[in-house]
Amino acid sequence: MERVHQHIPAISWSAKARRAVEAPISFLVTAAIANPDLINLAAGLVDDTTLPADAVDRIVHGIMADPARATAALQYGTTLGLANLRRQLLGHIEALEGKPASTMGLSADHIAVTTGSQQSLYLLGEALLDPGDIVIAANPSYFVFTGALAGLGARILTVTMDDDGMDVEAVDRLLSRLAGTGELARVKLIYCTSYFQNPTGLTLSAARRPRLLEIVRKHSAHHRILILEDAAYRELRYDGPALPSIKSFDPDNAFTLLAQTFSKPFAPGLKLGYTAAPPEVVDAIVHQKGSHDFGSANLCQFIALTALQDGAYHAQVKRLQSHYRLKRDTLLGALDKHVPTDPAIRWTHPHGGLYVWMELPDAIDTARGSPFFDDAIAEGVLYVPGAYCHPPDENGHVPASHLRLSFGQAPLARLEPGVHRLAAVIRRHLGTIAP
Amino acid sequence: MERVHQHIPAISWSAKARRAVEAPISFLVTAAIANPDLINLAAGLVDDTTLPADAVDRIVHGIMADPARATAALQYGTTLGLANLRRQLLGHIEALEGKPASTMGLSADHIAVTTGSQQSLYLLGEALLDPGDIVIAANPSYFVFTGALAGLGARILTVTMDDDGMDVEAVDRLLSRLAGTGELARVKLIYCTSYFQNPTGLTLSAARRPRLLEIVRKHSAHHRILILEDAAYRELRYDGPALPSIKSFDPDNAFTLLAQTFSKPFAPGLKLGYTAAPPEVVDAIVHQKGSHDFGSANLCQFIALTALQDGAYHAQVKRLQSHYRLKRDTLLGALDKHVPTDPAIRWTHPHGGLYVWMELPDAIDTARGSPFFDDAIAEGVLYVPGAYCHPPDENGHVPASHLRLSFGQAPLARLEPGVHRLAAVIRRHLGTIAP
Repeated sequence: MERVHQHIPAISWSAKARRAVEAPISFLVTAAIANPDLINLAAGLVDDTTLPADAVDRIVHGIMADPARATAALQYGTTLGLANLRRQLLGHIEALEGKPASTMGLSADHIAVTTGSQQSLYLLGEALLDPGDIVIAANPSYFVFTGALAGLGARILTVTMDDDGMDVEAVDRLLSRLAGTGELARVKLIYCTSYFQNPTGLTLSAARRPRLLEIVRKHSAHHRILILEDAAYRELRYDGPALPSIKSFDPDNAFTLLAQTFSKPFAPGLKLGYTAAPPEVVDAIVHQKGSHDFGSANLCQFIALTALQDGAYHAQVKRLQSHYRLKRDTLLGALDKHVPTDPAIRWTHPHGGLYVWMELPDAIDTARGSPFFDDAIAEGVLYVPGAYCHPPDENGHVPASHLRLSFGQAPLARLEPGVHRLAAVIRRHLGTIAP
Repeated sequence: MERVHQHIPAISWSAKARRAVEAPISFLVTAAIANPDLINLAAGLVDDTTLPADAVDRIVHGIMADPARATAALQYGTTLGLANLRRQLLGHIEALEGKPASTMGLSADHIAVTTGSQQSLYLLGEALLDPGDIVIAANPSYFVFTGALAGLGARILTVTMDDDGMDVEAVDRLLSRLAGTGELARVKLIYCTSYFQNPTGLTLSAARRPRLLEIVRKHSAHHRILILEDAAYRELRYDGPALPSIKSFDPDNAFTLLAQTFSKPFAPGLKLGYTAAPPEVVDAIVHQKGSHDFGSANLCQFIALTALQDGAYHAQVKRLQSHYRLKRDTLLGALDKHVPTDPAIRWTHPHGGLYVWMELPDAIDTARGSPFFDDAIAEGVLYVPGAYCHPPDENGHVPASHLRLSFGQAPLARLEPGVHRLAAVIRRHLGTIAP
């Protein structure tokens, strides 16, 4: 057909597409690709050197050599996920919690397998949230999820964090205030990354776990408010106690969803997550998923199942723990050594996960395009501007003097040089602010 | 914590979740599991005996033995999809169309990789459709997609099909009528399965392909109406000409999306699809996908890439073509032999795909729970009731005397016995209707 020189009119997008804003990750990826010498303390990726290639090779060979498993792994699966995997994951959750699934009202049918845990966060959002509905989150929070919430038109109200994680008493006060203004009915969800949070590395304390559930129950007189417990980093624990999940305190499997993943503790390339949730929430998630994709890659589910069964998964977790413990200690040691001492400069000391959160004096703006950010790029170090992690407060205000540093992807030997570069930038910008 | 005997209040779902209806597939799966002797002519699965276990074993071993590829395959990928895979897919599309990508305004950046082609259908729906927006589809149509559209609150208006596929002149008349009633602005999308359609097996004729594009251009004076060309079955072609896609007639890559998959021509277990689309549509799809999962399983993308490169993909397509050609011929032969001759009974003779569509006299109701359906289950044969494939017309009417038969999953040797059982049911029910 001949090229028609017709005017091409614009596409008429949905309200949802029109709410879309650019994902903050993309320009960071572009910056990292543009300068290979850049030391990337921004990426939330895992360390290339830790990926379990030999285990995946052996596992896939074992599956493909067994005709029944090979056929099942290469055929369509179910929307909910492979039954044997879900049974194995139930046992895995029991081992992590140190108690039988029955004490949490859980069975394998209450576990949904998704394309990373991100997909379950999204499916839950879709099942719960109409534009204007309210989600309560810690400030700062995981920006991919808060971005997805914004796309769904949800209002994100935040509470502060301290060394014990999300301030749950502030959640209580916020819910009371919303009850007073007649907005409680719009509150659908509390989002809490309970272990080694992205972006702060902070963990919700033991005492706050049952307390958050108690608060949610108290405010659920008219409709059920749910807690979405994002435990993506749970198994990347380097020291400190192995805390039970918030979910473990919910004996009726009624108020809490526990979202975990294979991406951080095993391999992101499988893109598999799983969520233990109340039965009607599993139904709703799976119903939405039936329209999205009717099931995540079955081959990856067989690999994950086999890794859990044959010990490869647990060996990988152990390996990651010792590797990342060393990287965390190296990053924290370098920060102590190189960053100038200043009462307004501080950073977290996480017991797990991949992130350290740094606060600089208020007068230093770390946002994309700021002199500080551009200076860091020029110096050869990349971080995530903290502003991306702060949902705006009710006046639209976003703190701009914070940074997320990751010791995930950058090679061990590059962590101290990266901090050295960053410290040089900090020193220069400290010199420019009014005393 | 002690079990609290508190009343557990109901969850307050989103409008979207409240629109949800049960997916028709699930009860068919349940029926098939309940009776292993059932001959399953319902399932849209592929034949277990054809799955490429040896190729996947070899491919994964090759990837894992190469440290750079192993690392990349097990690490996070990008939301858009693996760049090398998208370049390979561009070449694959060129080979299928028999013309350079440039003549279609296409580059590798216009291809998005998704979790099956279903995910791209859903992401497009999400990016385009507000409740009340209109999608025009053939009647019957692929029920998983029309179900997803219903979940998004879209109105599905339909046009009839004949041996040349979707009646595109009826699309023209419908668009003119909608322009007359002031509803043209709500029309966002034309959905067309252009090759061996699910459920009818019918193919859009050569002449209708450029004509549909011409019609859409004509009615796009004020906003751009898009064509979603679902080509999932394209490569499962057993005879007849290899037609170019509708997309191949769109030189500016402006009006058409071409959605293809690895599920049918290679292996469903990888759960990978890909869509060539106008640049702003790729952006919109990828933006939504960034919130859903920020990228499909990277390991599966590396497997698909290698299969395309090393010949395993093309060998598999050839093998499937000869295997399913025989199965199609066997099914059609059995229908000729066993189904009673009656002017009101007819079925399609597809040149590819996995489906034969059968029409029975209007008085026979084949719906779930009908005497005919229950009789078929009792006889030991399962089909998809045609009613699931018919979006309701403007009076809410759905024809109920049709069946979708698949020669995909049922073993070759079970096709004739399956038809024999079905024919017995048809014969009994023909006897019960008024002459």
